Amino acid sequence: MENNKIKQNDIVLIVYDNNHKWLIDLSVQKEFHTNKGVINCEDLIGKEFGIKIESSLGKPFYILKPTIRDITLKTKRKTQIIYPKDASFIIYFTGIRSGYRVLEAGVGSGALTLALAYYVSPNGKIYGYEKNETHYNVAKKNLEKFEFDKVVDLRLKDISDGSDEKNLDVIILDLADPWNIIPKISGCLKNSGYIVCYSPTTSQVEKTLRILKSHGFYYIHTLEILCRTWQPEYDKLRPNTRMIGHTGFITFAVKVLET
Amino acid sequence: MENNKIKQNDIVLIVYDNNHKWLIDLSVQKEFHTNKGVINCEDLIGKEFGIKIESSLGKPFYILKPTIRDITLKTKRKTQIIYPKDASFIIYFTGIRSGYRVLEAGVGSGALTLALAYYVSPNGKIYGYEKNETHYNVAKKNLEKFEFDKVVDLRLKDISDGSDEKNLDVIILDLADPWNIIPKISGCLKNSGYIVCYSPTTSQVEKTLRILKSHGFYYIHTLEILCRTWQPEYDKLRPNTRMIGHTGFITFAVKVLET
Amino acid sequence: MENNKIKQNDIVLIVYDNNHKWLIDLSVQKEFHTNKGVINCEDLIGKEFGIKIESSLGKPFYILKPTIRDITLKTKRKTQIIYPKDASFIIYFTGIRSGYRVLEAGVGSGALTLALAYYVSPNGKIYGYEKNETHYNVAKKNLEKFEFDKVVDLRLKDISDGSDEKNLDVIILDLADPWNIIPKISGCLKNSGYIVCYSPTTSQVEKTLRILKSHGFYYIHTLEILCRTWQPEYDKLRPNTRMIGHTGFITFAVKVLET
Amino acid sequence: MENNKIKQNDIVLIVYDNNHKWLIDLSVQKEFHTNKGVINCEDLIGKEFGIKIESSLGKPFYILKPTIRDITLKTKRKTQIIYPKDASFIIYFTGIRSGYRVLEAGVGSGALTLALAYYVSPNGKIYGYEKNETHYNVAKKNLEKFEFDKVVDLRLKDISDGSDEKNLDVIILDLADPWNIIPKISGCLKNSGYIVCYSPTTSQVEKTLRILKSHGFYYIHTLEILCRTWQPEYDKLRPNTRMIGHTGFITFAVKVLET
Repeated sequence: MENNKIKQNDIVLIVYDNNHKWLIDLSVQKEFHTNKGVINCEDLIGKEFGIKIESSLGKPFYILKPTIRDITLKTKRKTQIIYPKDASFIIYFTGIRSGYRVLEAGVGSGALTLALAYYVSPNGKIYGYEKNETHYNVAKKNLEKFEFDKVVDLRLKDISDGSDEKNLDVIILDLADPWNIIPKISGCLKNSGYIVCYSPTTSQVEKTLRILKSHGFYYIHTLEILCRTWQPEYDKLRPNTRMIGHTGFITFAVKVLET
Repeated sequence: MENNKIKQNDIVLIVYDNNHKWLIDLSVQKEFHTNKGVINCEDLIGKEFGIKIESSLGKPFYILKPTIRDITLKTKRKTQIIYPKDASFIIYFTGIRSGYRVLEAGVGSGALTLALAYYVSPNGKIYGYEKNETHYNVAKKNLEKFEFDKVVDLRLKDISDGSDEKNLDVIILDLADPWNIIPKISGCLKNSGYIVCYSPTTSQVEKTLRILKSHGFYYIHTLEILCRTWQPEYDKLRPNTRMIGHTGFITFAVKVLET
Repeated sequence: MENNKIKQNDIVLIVYDNNHKWLIDLSVQKEFHTNKGVINCEDLIGKEFGIKIESSLGKPFYILKPTIRDITLKTKRKTQIIYPKDASFIIYFTGIRSGYRVLEAGVGSGALTLALAYYVSPNGKIYGYEKNETHYNVAKKNLEKFEFDKVVDLRLKDISDGSDEKNLDVIILDLADPWNIIPKISGCLKNSGYIVCYSPTTSQVEKTLRILKSHGFYYIHTLEILCRTWQPEYDKLRPNTRMIGHTGFITFAVKVLET
Repeated sequence: MENNKIKQNDIVLIVYDNNHKWLIDLSVQKEFHTNKGVINCEDLIGKEFGIKIESSLGKPFYILKPTIRDITLKTKRKTQIIYPKDASFIIYFTGIRSGYRVLEAGVGSGALTLALAYYVSPNGKIYGYEKNETHYNVAKKNLEKFEFDKVVDLRLKDISDGSDEKNLDVIILDLADPWNIIPKISGCLKNSGYIVCYSPTTSQVEKTLRILKSHGFYYIHTLEILCRTWQPEYDKLRPNTRMIGHTGFITFAVKVLET
C-alpha cells in the first residue's frame, strides 16, 4: 500500500466538513491556517490517506486523496466554474476516455480542461484555445500544478481564426457565440464525432441549433443537468434549502456525412 | 482515417431520429427491419461512420459510432436501467478512470458494469457480483458482446457472503439493502476510497446513512441528478413535456482512518 | 350536515385510486361502468360524501366532493390542460379572489376559466375570449355544467380585435402571440393591475418580454412551476419515476404609470 | 377609479426592482429611507397606484398595490416563511375560497394564515393554533395590520390538546409531529374534507403516511412544488443561478367513511 501514503509533493484535500475543505499543495505549503487552528503540513508526509488529524486548536480534520471532482471544484479560477454535474455528463455522453483527441475552445481558468486531461490521459490530447492572456496564464498554472501540461496543448489563440487539427473525436465550445465558430471548425472534427456547446441563455441555444442544422450536424440533443443535494442526516433527511438552479444548457450534435 | 470505417464485426448505432435508434451488431445481423423499411447491413461495411443511407422505403438513416451512453441506454436488459446522468456522475465523483479497481455489487443486466469497464480499461478491473443467475447470464453476454469480459471479473455470488478483494479504489452497491452489506465489505476498500450506494427510496437512504456514520465513513454526500431534456428546435425551443422525475438517490462516502 | 349529503344533481368524484378517478354528473348518469364493475349512481343519492361503496364486482370506490383541482383535471377538453400547479400560482400571484374582474384570452376548453370563475365568485367577473368555435362550445358546456355561466361572460371573439372592458384587475393571455395582443389590450387593465402570459417556448417569452418593457409594464417575473409527485407509501417513499417536465413559462407584469 | 387611489391608511408596495421592494404602512410611516434616497410617504396619498416617483436622490420607484403574494413574502416574521408556490398549491388543491372553515395548527408568524384569511374572506373562518407566545403575538399583529383579525380566530393553544371545532372543510398541520396530532383532530374534519401536512423531512412524511392510512384517510398525495425563476431579459433569457431547492413536502389526504 505504498501508493496510499502521503508524499512530499502531493496535493491533498483537507476536509473539516462538506462545506469546509481545501486543496493543499504540500510541496509549497508548510503550514495551513484556518479559523479552526493550524495544521502542520510536514507532519502529514508518510501518513496514510484517509487519516484523521487534529489542528492546533484540537479540531478534527481528515486528509483525503482529492478526486477530479474536488480538483475542479477547488482549483484557482478567474472565470465561471464548470460544475461536476456538467463536466461528467459531457465526458460520458461523448465517451471521452483514455486516448481521445479533444479540442476545447474557451478554456477560461481551465477547470473543464483539467477534467478532460484527467480522462484522456495518458495517450490522448487536449487542444485548448483561450484568447484572453490572463485566463490563459491561470489555466497554464493549473495544468502544470496537476502535471497535465503534457496532455494539454494550451494555445493563447482566438478560435475564431480556426484550427489546423484534423479528425478530432470531440470539440467543446464554451464561449459566447458558438454559432460563429461552428462553421470555422467543423472541418476539424471526424465524421460521427461530437460537437458540444455549453451556453447559459436560451437565445444562444436557439442560434446554435440553427447553425448546427444547416452545417451537417444530426442527432442533436439539448438538455440541462440539475444536481439536487440532500442533507445527509439519517434522522432528518431532506434536500438542502438552496440549490444551483442553472449553470448552462448543453447541446450535443454529431457530424454526419451526406451522400 | 482507416479507423473511422465501418468494419464487419462493428456494433453500430442506426439513427432515424432521437427517439428511434438501434444498436446493431453487424457480425450477427445481415438485415435490419423497421416500419420505415429495410436496411441491408452488409452494404454498410467499408463505409465511413457518420454516413447517411436510405432504407428500402427511401427513408433516411444515419450510421453512427455508438458512445458508451448509447450502449448503456440500448443494451439488452432484464432489470432497471442505469441512466447516463447517474452513471456519469458516479464515475466522475469518484474519479474512476483507466487503471481503477472497482467492486460493483448488484450487477443486474450489467449496464453500469459496461460503463465502468469502458472507463477503467485497459489496465483496471471490475469485480462484479450478481446472485441472480438469469441476470448474471444477461450481464455476461452484454460484456462479451462489447469485449469487456477481460476487464470484468463477473461472479455469480451473493455479496452478503463478503469479498476477498483488498485495497479497492471504489465500491458501488446497487442493491436493496446496502446497510447490511457495508459492514461486510468495508475492509475491501482502501483508505480514502469511495463507497457509492444507489437507492430509490428515502428509507433506504436513511438506513444507509446511519450505517455509514457508524462504520468509519466521512465526507458523505447524498444527492440526486435530474436530466431535463429540451426539444432542440431553434424556433420552438422548450423543455420536453415528459421527463424522468426519479431514478435513485446516490450516496457517496469516503473511508477514513481514525487514529 | 345536510350540505354534506350527495344530492340528485351533484357532480361527484368517484375514486378507485389516485390514477383511476372519474367526475360523474349524477343528473345525467344513472350507472357508471368501469372494468372494475358497475356502480349504480342512484344508490349514491342521500349518502354522505366520503362514503365507501362497492361495485358490482365487489371492488371498493370512494365518493368524494370534487375540488376545483379535480374539476380542472378531469373536465372535458379538446385543448391542452392547464395544470393545477400553474392555475394555482397564477391565481395567487395576482391575488385573484372573490370580486375580481379578469379578462382571459385563449379560453380553449375552459379549464382555467373554471378555476378563475370558482375564485372570483360570486361577485367578480371573467371576460373570456375564444375565437375557435369548437373550443368555444366545449368551454360553454363546461361552464354551464358547473353553473359558472353567470360569472363568465364567454365571447366567441378574437382578442386581436381588442376589448371594451376597462379597469380590469388582471388580464391572462394563454395564446400563441401575446406580444401582438399586449399593445391592443393594455388599456383595459387598471394601473397596478397584472398581465399574465403563459407560453410553452422560450422564443415566445423573449418576444413577450420585449413588448412588456416597451409598453409600460414593470415588476416583471418569468418563472416555471414544477410539481414533483411522490409515491405516498411510508415504507417505500420516493418520487414517482415519471413527471411532467414542462407545461409553460409564466410571465407576470404590472401596468405602471409614468409621470 | 376612486378605489385605485392611494389612501392615508393603505399598505403599499414600494418597488425599486424585483429584489428591492418594501411593504410600507402609510398610517405609520411618514418617510421611507433606503440607500437609494428618501421617499416622502405623505406625497403618495391621493396619487394613483402604479405611479412612478423619484426618491430624494433621483432614483425611480414604483408604488404598487401589494397582492397577497407580496404580503406573505414581506410580512414580519420570526419563523420559516411559507412560500407562494406552497401556499397557492395548498389553497387550490383543497379548494379553499370564500366561505371555507379551516383549522391551521402551527401558525408561526402567520404568513400562511394571512393567505388563508384572504381567500376565505368575508364569510369563512380560520381557526389558528399557536402554542408559542412570541410567535402568537407576531401573528396577531400581522393579522390586525391587514384587518384579518375578524376572519381569524387565533388561539394561544397547543393543538395536541385537541379542538372542539366540527365539520371543518380543511385542516392544515404545519408542525413537527403531524402523526401525533392527526388522531386527535380528525374528528373535527367533515367527511370528504382535506387534511394537509407540511413537513421538511422524509422521515416526517413516512410517519405521517403511516398514521393517515390507519386513521381513515384516502386519496393521499405527497408532492413537492418547485418554483424556478428566470431572469426576465429578452436578450439573455435564462433561469437564475440560484433557486430554492426545498421548502417542504406537502401531503394531502381526504377523510373517508368506511361503511
